[in-house]
Amino acid sequence: MAVTMQDVAARAGVSIKTVSNVVNGYPHIRAATRERVEEAIDHLGYRINETARSLRTRRTDMITLAVPELSLPYFAELADSVIQAADARGLTVLIEQTGHGRVREVDVLTGKRRNMTDGLIFSPLELGPEDLALFDVDFPLVVLGERVFGAPADHVTMNNVAAAKAATMHLAALGRKRIAVVGGHEGEQVGSAALRTTGYRQGLEAAGLPYDPALVAEAGLWHRSTGAEAMGRLLDDGVEVDGVFALNDALALGALHALHTRRMEVPGDVSVIGFDDIDDARYSVPTLSSVDPGRVQIAQTAVELLVARITGAETGPYRRVIPDSRIIGRESTGDVPEGGEGRPVAVQQGGIEQVAVAAAPAPA
Amino acid sequence: MAVTMQDVAARAGVSIKTVSNVVNGYPHIRAATRERVEEAIDHLGYRINETARSLRTRRTDMITLAVPELSLPYFAELADSVIQAADARGLTVLIEQTGHGRVREVDVLTGKRRNMTDGLIFSPLELGPEDLALFDVDFPLVVLGERVFGAPADHVTMNNVAAAKAATMHLAALGRKRIAVVGGHEGEQVGSAALRTTGYRQGLEAAGLPYDPALVAEAGLWHRSTGAEAMGRLLDDGVEVDGVFALNDALALGALHALHTRRMEVPGDVSVIGFDDIDDARYSVPTLSSVDPGRVQIAQTAVELLVARITGAETGPYRRVIPDSRIIGRESTGDVPEGGEGRPVAVQQGGIEQVAVAAAPAPA
Repeated sequence: MAVTMQDVAARAGVSIKTVSNVVNGYPHIRAATRERVEEAIDHLGYRINETARSLRTRRTDMITLAVPELSLPYFAELADSVIQAADARGLTVLIEQTGHGRVREVDVLTGKRRNMTDGLIFSPLELGPEDLALFDVDFPLVVLGERVFGAPADHVTMNNVAAAKAATMHLAALGRKRIAVVGGHEGEQVGSAALRTTGYRQGLEAAGLPYDPALVAEAGLWHRSTGAEAMGRLLDDGVEVDGVFALNDALALGALHALHTRRMEVPGDVSVIGFDDIDDARYSVPTLSSVDPGRVQIAQTAVELLVARITGAETGPYRRVIPDSRIIGRESTGDVPEGGEGRPVAVQQGGIEQVAVAAAPAPA
Repeated sequence: MAVTMQDVAARAGVSIKTVSNVVNGYPHIRAATRERVEEAIDHLGYRINETARSLRTRRTDMITLAVPELSLPYFAELADSVIQAADARGLTVLIEQTGHGRVREVDVLTGKRRNMTDGLIFSPLELGPEDLALFDVDFPLVVLGERVFGAPADHVTMNNVAAAKAATMHLAALGRKRIAVVGGHEGEQVGSAALRTTGYRQGLEAAGLPYDPALVAEAGLWHRSTGAEAMGRLLDDGVEVDGVFALNDALALGALHALHTRRMEVPGDVSVIGFDDIDDARYSVPTLSSVDPGRVQIAQTAVELLVARITGAETGPYRRVIPDSRIIGRESTGDVPEGGEGRPVAVQQGGIEQVAVAAAPAPA
C-alpha cells in the first residue's frame, strides 16, 4: 500500500500540515523539524502525489462553507454574509449542510471533496474536543463556533459567556426575578448551550438572584417548535416565570408563541430575550430583543483569515477572533416603545488571541 | 482555436445535448440527426475532449443546487428538503447562492463549475424566456420555478395562478371586500409576481369583487422589511383594507408587523394570507395562513428527475411536474381558534405534462 502523508507525519511526530509544508517548500520551518520530516520521507519511501499537488496549487477561486442546518435562520444568514464577503474578493462559495450527522462532519474534513475548493470554513455541531486530530488537515481551514478549541486552524467564535451573562443581567435590571432559560442541554460540557448557560448562571449571580433548576427548560434542537414546547411545558407545569432568556432566537420566537397562546403579555407579564439577532427579530410581534453576536464580522473575518492562508499572505501562528457582541433591546423587553427601532443596550468587547494548539505538535 | 461542441451543434442545426448524445453513443437518436452531427464533426474537425469525457462519466455522487438567496426562508427550507431527498439516495448537495445577479446565474449554467458535480437543480430569478438557449446544456439539469418555461430540461414548478386565485377567494369567502395584494411587480410579465398577481385578479373576479389598482402594494424584493414597508405605505396612504394576500410569507410577516404597529387587529380588522408555508407561519403571532406549494414534493421530484437523467434511467421527453398545493388556514384568517393547528381549507390539483421545448430544435 502506498505510503501516505499521514504515515510520514506519524513517524516524524509532526502534524500533517507540517509534512505538507516541508513537501511544498514553505519557508519558516525549523531546521530540526524539516530534518525529521525528510528522514521520515526517505525511510518510508514516501512519494509526493504530483497530481494531487498540481491540483492543490491550481486555484479554483471557490471556497466551501459547511454548516449544520440552513433552515436555522442564523446559519442561513451567516451563509449569506459569508457569500457577500467572499464575493467582494471574487470568490464563489459552495455550501454544504452537514445536518446533525457526525459522519457528514468527518467527511467534510477527510472526504474526497476536501480538495475541490481552495479552502474550508467549517462550523461543526457534532465534532468536539475529542476530534481535534481530524482538524489537522492539509488545506486552508477556518473553524467557526464553540465546539472545538485548540485545533490547528484559525478560529472565529463568539462572546458566548459574556453576552449570555449580559442578557440575563439586562432582564434582572428590568426587575425580573424569575428568569427562565430556554434551550438548555443538561449535562453537556461543550458547545453553545453549555457556554450560554454558564453565562446565564453568572448573570443571575451578578444580579444576586438564586439559580433554580426548575427554571431551566431543556430543548435538544434549537427550533421554533422546540422553543414553543419547552416554554409551554414550563408554563403548564405551573413554574412562575417573569423573564425568559432563550439560547437562540428561533427558541425565543417559539417561546413568544407559547406565551401568546397562554394569553401572557410580553413584555407586560414576561420579558423575553433571544440570541443571534436574526432578521425575524425585527418583525416578530412583539419585536424580539436579542444578542447580536457580530454575525457580519464573523463572516468577514472568517473569509479574510481563509484568504490569507490560501494566498500564503499569512503563515504565522493561528489566531482566534471574537467580534464584539451587543444586546439589542426591542419591544419584548420594553426597551423601545411599540413600533420603535431596536437599540444596543450593552456591548461586550471581543478580541484577537493566538490559538494554543492542543494535543498535537504545533505546526512548524 | 479549438472547435467546440457549440460549433458542431450550430452547423448541424441541433442542440448541444444532441451533439453530446451522439458523441457519447446514446441510443434513441434518429439516423438523420446522427448523420447531420457526424457530418458536422467531420467537416469541422471536432475532437472529443477525452479528459472532459472521462470526467463526465466518472460519477461524483454530488449534485448542485443553485438558488437565489438562502436568507429567504423559502429557499433555505427548499435547500433542506433537497438535501434530505438527495441524502436518501446517497448524494451530497453543494449549494450555490446566485444572489440577485444575472452574471452569477449565467455562470451556473456555463461556468467552469458546471461539470464538478453529476447534475444541477437550478432555480433562476434573473434569467427569463429570452435566455432559453443558455439552458441547452450538456449535463443533467432540472429547472425550478416559473421564470423559464420550455427549456430543454425537466421542470418542477408550482400551481401559482390557481393557488393565488384560491387564496384570494378564501379571503373573499370570509367576507373581505377590500383585498390588498402585497409584493406586486408592476409591468413584469414573467415570474412568480406576475403569475400570482394574475391569480389574485382571477380570484377577485370569481368572487365578484372589482380590481382596484390602489390595493396593489409594490415590493421589489420579497423580504419582511419590504413587506412591512409596502403594507405601511398602503395604510399610511389611507387606503381602506380588510384583507391582505401577500405574494410570499416573508412579505406577509412584514405586513403583520406593519398592521400591528398601527394597532390594527388580525384577523379582526384585516385577514392576512401568505404564500410558501414556511416554518415561521406556524409560530408567528398570530399564526399565518398560507399557500403550501408542496415544497417537499418539489424537492423530492426534482431530485428524482435529476437522478433519472444522471443514471440514464430516463432518456425520454422532458417533463414538467406541478405538485398539488393547499391553502392552509390559521389564525390570521380566523380559520382556527387561537392556539389551534393549521388545517387545509382548499386543495389545487397538480399534474405532470410533457415539456414543449421552445425555440431550439428538440433533443434527439
